[in-house]
Amino acid sequence: MWRASILTLYPEMFPGPLGVSLSGEALANGSWALETRNIRDFGQGRHRSVDDTPAGGGPGMVIRADVLADAIDALGDDGRPRLLMSPRGLPLQQAHVRALAAGEGAVIVCGRFEGVDQRVIEARGLTEVSIGDYVLSGGELGAMVLIDACVRLLPGVMGGATSGDEESFENGLLEYPHYTRPLLFEDRAIPDILRSGHHKNIAAWRRSEAEALTRERRPDLWAAYQARQPPQKKRK
Amino acid sequence: MWRASILTLYPEMFPGPLGVSLSGEALANGSWALETRNIRDFGQGRHRSVDDTPAGGGPGMVIRADVLADAIDALGDDGRPRLLMSPRGLPLQQAHVRALAAGEGAVIVCGRFEGVDQRVIEARGLTEVSIGDYVLSGGELGAMVLIDACVRLLPGVMGGATSGDEESFENGLLEYPHYTRPLLFEDRAIPDILRSGHHKNIAAWRRSEAEALTRERRPDLWAAYQARQPPQKKRK
Repeated sequence: MWRASILTLYPEMFPGPLGVSLSGEALANGSWALETRNIRDFGQGRHRSVDDTPAGGGPGMVIRADVLADAIDALGDDGRPRLLMSPRGLPLQQAHVRALAAGEGAVIVCGRFEGVDQRVIEARGLTEVSIGDYVLSGGELGAMVLIDACVRLLPGVMGGATSGDEESFENGLLEYPHYTRPLLFEDRAIPDILRSGHHKNIAAWRRSEAEALTRERRPDLWAAYQARQPPQKKRK
Repeated sequence: MWRASILTLYPEMFPGPLGVSLSGEALANGSWALETRNIRDFGQGRHRSVDDTPAGGGPGMVIRADVLADAIDALGDDGRPRLLMSPRGLPLQQAHVRALAAGEGAVIVCGRFEGVDQRVIEARGLTEVSIGDYVLSGGELGAMVLIDACVRLLPGVMGGATSGDEESFENGLLEYPHYTRPLLFEDRAIPDILRSGHHKNIAAWRRSEAEALTRERRPDLWAAYQARQPPQKKRK
């Protein structure tokens, strides 16, 4: 079973949103398991202190290497990847999510304050993962994002709800626009092509819309997509 | 006061993690306000149906334009930006977060299923926002990420905990490594420079570490950073 083990100073945040809807049903029916450990349980002294001032000065507090190492070691090492949610990490992409979902799960460390002592990152082989180019108050929401993205790909979780193959990023393109009833919304009609019943034309139109959207909004994805097409299919 | 209004099929997810720690304290002391509306309250018929099958065929369900428009209209229009969390959106960056935090708040629509009818996106001027290049089971976690990133920047929320100026992305670089006590962790010492007490040298070392990390991990950020430097300071 796919298992997420979370090291956090705020275990009460979990499962939170992960306990609702798709991921919550999958948690309840045993498609995945969630375990939280409070880093503070490994804190030092009477106040179970977990942090200290930054060496060299500066604002904020840094989580101690020894405290976090003890928390990590208490989980043992069963081969699951050890991740640290951090804006310094490599940006999470759907391909990483697929690879992670195909494994046994993950140990996920949620940073807080100014960050985590660099030495525990190196000594315990933590892979820094970023969910995007912005700063959050801690790693917990990032961990939830990572888990939600993985859990929906686990066998049986989505069922027949969606194939997943035509979603954004799965084919290197943003997704085409969706329409549903009513036929006329205010003064806007569903595009005629979608009412034609001609599946091949509909597929071609959707592909064309997805390509146009990607080209307009995401030149980075578009360049990568273009580079992967056979030469005769490339378009400016 | 900064206000987030959430349109969702899962209002029970909120405030969830946003009710804890930094954002939770800020919510409790009135630094920001959270309002949730259940899209299902605007659903149609006996079952309060909110979705229907995609025009043109395909898997999954699409949220109806008329239902979502009614939910949006019920909030009125007070000039706050209307956002739709979606992997098709422009990638959220710290500069957007800063701009959003400086405003009055946001109306945030959380998509579910295959997506939302394109016509309501256009008719109600929804700006699609993506928190990263991966697919989630719904927009709720994305909304929480967006709100957490904004709330920590609101006046008084972080207090003296951190200046924010040296964090990842604020100066175009990933953040330098942090260290704290103990001096020796296993066989790893805190770098000598950080114990020198020479603030100017420490600042230069941190800058150099941040540059090296950015160059190694994020060629995209590094290129943008280089392009912004005065000519004489550019380095390969």
